[in-house]
Amino acid sequence: MAKKKKEAPLTGITVSKEEDFSGWYTELINKAELADIRYNIKGFVVYREWATITIRKMYRKTEDLLEKKGHLPLTMPSLIPESNFLLEADHVEGFAPEVFWVTEAGSSGKLAERLALRPTSETALYKMYSMWLRSYKDLPFKRYLSCQVWRYEGKMTRPFFRGREFHWIESHNVFATMEGAMEQVKEDMETTYQILQDECCIPLIFFQRPEWDKFAGAVHTYAADALMGSGKVLQLPSTHLLGQNFSKPFNVKFVDTDGEEKYGYQTCYGPSQSRNYGAMIAYLGDDKGLVLPFDLAPVQIIIIPIIYKGKEEFVLKKAREIENQLKDKYIVKLDDSDESAGNKFYYWELKGVPLRIEIGPKDIEKSHVVIVKRHDGQKFFVQENELKEFIDNLAENYTKEIKEKSLVDFESQIEVAYEKDAAIEAINNGKIVCCGFCSIDFDGEHCAEIVEKDIGGFVRGKRIDEEKHEFATCIICNKPATCTVYIAKSY
Amino acid sequence: MAKKKKEAPLTGITVSKEEDFSGWYTELINKAELADIRYNIKGFVVYREWATITIRKMYRKTEDLLEKKGHLPLTMPSLIPESNFLLEADHVEGFAPEVFWVTEAGSSGKLAERLALRPTSETALYKMYSMWLRSYKDLPFKRYLSCQVWRYEGKMTRPFFRGREFHWIESHNVFATMEGAMEQVKEDMETTYQILQDECCIPLIFFQRPEWDKFAGAVHTYAADALMGSGKVLQLPSTHLLGQNFSKPFNVKFVDTDGEEKYGYQTCYGPSQSRNYGAMIAYLGDDKGLVLPFDLAPVQIIIIPIIYKGKEEFVLKKAREIENQLKDKYIVKLDDSDESAGNKFYYWELKGVPLRIEIGPKDIEKSHVVIVKRHDGQKFFVQENELKEFIDNLAENYTKEIKEKSLVDFESQIEVAYEKDAAIEAINNGKIVCCGFCSIDFDGEHCAEIVEKDIGGFVRGKRIDEEKHEFATCIICNKPATCTVYIAKSY
Repeated sequence: MAKKKKEAPLTGITVSKEEDFSGWYTELINKAELADIRYNIKGFVVYREWATITIRKMYRKTEDLLEKKGHLPLTMPSLIPESNFLLEADHVEGFAPEVFWVTEAGSSGKLAERLALRPTSETALYKMYSMWLRSYKDLPFKRYLSCQVWRYEGKMTRPFFRGREFHWIESHNVFATMEGAMEQVKEDMETTYQILQDECCIPLIFFQRPEWDKFAGAVHTYAADALMGSGKVLQLPSTHLLGQNFSKPFNVKFVDTDGEEKYGYQTCYGPSQSRNYGAMIAYLGDDKGLVLPFDLAPVQIIIIPIIYKGKEEFVLKKAREIENQLKDKYIVKLDDSDESAGNKFYYWELKGVPLRIEIGPKDIEKSHVVIVKRHDGQKFFVQENELKEFIDNLAENYTKEIKEKSLVDFESQIEVAYEKDAAIEAINNGKIVCCGFCSIDFDGEHCAEIVEKDIGGFVRGKRIDEEKHEFATCIICNKPATCTVYIAKSY
Repeated sequence: MAKKKKEAPLTGITVSKEEDFSGWYTELINKAELADIRYNIKGFVVYREWATITIRKMYRKTEDLLEKKGHLPLTMPSLIPESNFLLEADHVEGFAPEVFWVTEAGSSGKLAERLALRPTSETALYKMYSMWLRSYKDLPFKRYLSCQVWRYEGKMTRPFFRGREFHWIESHNVFATMEGAMEQVKEDMETTYQILQDECCIPLIFFQRPEWDKFAGAVHTYAADALMGSGKVLQLPSTHLLGQNFSKPFNVKFVDTDGEEKYGYQTCYGPSQSRNYGAMIAYLGDDKGLVLPFDLAPVQIIIIPIIYKGKEEFVLKKAREIENQLKDKYIVKLDDSDESAGNKFYYWELKGVPLRIEIGPKDIEKSHVVIVKRHDGQKFFVQENELKEFIDNLAENYTKEIKEKSLVDFESQIEVAYEKDAAIEAINNGKIVCCGFCSIDFDGEHCAEIVEKDIGGFVRGKRIDEEKHEFATCIICNKPATCTVYIAKSY
């Protein structure tokens, strides 16, 4: 699919993921040709073929799931007039430092008004919503965009994890009541688990973010964190309860069943497909290269003929037969290039192709083929007449196996701490700390600052799926704890 | 799928397409809720749900076809540094008047270099190509982007036809020889026919554009024109033979089989999905609203229960049964809203749903249903036990029937002219004129200016698929004709 560079020997990744996550990730991106960071604008990268194909598959899965849940797609302009932007005060304050501005066009020079490259689409969409929505019959109104956004990031960028242009879906919804909106937040969390945990095999925790760390303009923000190999968490999709914070300035109203005109209650949800991809390859990859869920791999089965002199056509003919047997159901590639079989093994392992079929003259004599699974290296000798069934079985279980391993690994990364010193040690060991905390309202912000300074992590928020908590006091101030929080380093 | 506005009676389009194409198109866009022109930046529109779904289907069909022909997808940044832009002189001259510039970001103010919102991606991509390509083994190198582009259009914008942001695919390819590049141009033309003529039912002619009307930086431009209902042609996808015009300034080189380093020969091809959509709905639509090919319709079959008082559940139950029978294979919707059956008929005709199934108490007694085809209004009474097979048959032929009608209509729109007066009359009658012409090299530019002034049309170029020509002299200067050209008004 991608061309092999003769000059680089094909020997997997040379940096250990465990010892140097950051170096490992950079080498993975380069060697597997996933992104090119040499594009000449800081923070903007090219996504190569192999990454683009998987990201597209992730988009389609997410779009299909959203549509099953009643969302419809829209296409919005990428530019937002500055005057729209100024309508919600917290929002503009939060996003102003991150906006790229279009100020000139063509030969006519300066535009009358600055146009923002959308950093997110609330202020573009909700003006339209105010024109479209009329009555309670139009609600719930659930729409989404598949698009890219631009943010002038101050933090260090890293391909897929964080860039100045990234690719996401944003869903924007209007309800008649706050309860309806909160139900949507829950549905968004379920969607996140379905895509990220079930399809991408990334284990997650959903948090209600602290007051000081929520989306600009939201009532509450709920965000998923994944623990990366480096002991740092990465924020994955977040869903925001906007309440009437936007519907009032943007005039998103409807006539209710009682004939009264009311402001809608809103939510928005933003799964970033490019970041999800980064999280997935970082979480699942190993020192041989990529590991990909079966459905998301650009090539699912690679066939490698083991060629001996004089037996070329004999082996290739069988290899093609097997390719033909499988290609209606799976994405199969036969690598008949001139590289050595060893180099081909390394190359396709690096690319994360889930199943490898090896076939040589001796295998043909024995009427079997060799199958190797990428994610655990398991090897099978399979009789040719049982091949299809065997592959069906492997294909069906491949992603589940990765997911189960991920979930077990993840649980072991969480450490409960009752005292600050224990928390410091856990953070230094690359763990997520679970502990008691005084408050995720603004009252607790001072303690969170101490967490950051002394423990070296961030208060990620209150876990959503745990109603009760087991901690009596705040790990910092020793006042009564109102919630259980998680502390972690973050990207 | 979309909400019905009670205030607007559902009575199809009130303007006749034949009498006032422009008014008809505007009303179609509004009433069928395809685009919203009220977005508050000039030339930027919102594509509504119904249009977005079909455009997405068009993207997927085009992507699939390109990938079958050996192209792979890439994702490029949307911004291009001004310094890249300046590398190819004709290109920058051609595009400079149309570029939106990002000049400021965040609170840090002015950027060191202006960044163009890509009007097309040659100058972004080819810098990468120069880093990626090494050897003849890398060729042919065929890649594509699915993305949007921005152009500060001077001409009047119209939803889907022409906007300041539009959605396209651009494919960019490198070959070892000029012949290889020319083969790609031919393949692109074939792809255009496969998508636009076979899938979208828009009849086309492919022209080599005159020298004065080619893509900025191209050796030659080949473009498809479609005749819209208004007697004007609309340029649809164009494919450009770039030769070495870009590979030299952008240093796109490879080591050939003889060990020599050589510049590649390039082509690029840009099917605009949003414009193709506009052309399709304009060409196929009628005074009842949209007509859509079967595969591209967001809903393929609408089931309308004819409800009489007291029989509600009896009819709805049967309607649901039929929905269940068909929904595995087709995109089916049961309209069980409170609207009258008549209003539902109008509404779904306006939306262009290919097949309507009507079912009332009397139909149920007779064990049949009524089926109506949108594109020709044909009506059938079909026994319930034959329904599935009958629908399969209609579905299979629906798009072919539209296409055949389109092709016949189109042929009748072309008129051969041997003299200027005949050409003027034909143009005034909304025809495309076919005639002799002195030259589409720069020698012929003066005659083309006279064509524009006196005949009121544009020389669209030399037809590609006609080797010979039948005209002895140029319709303007009476010098010997070197080619047959077509003249038409254009969008």
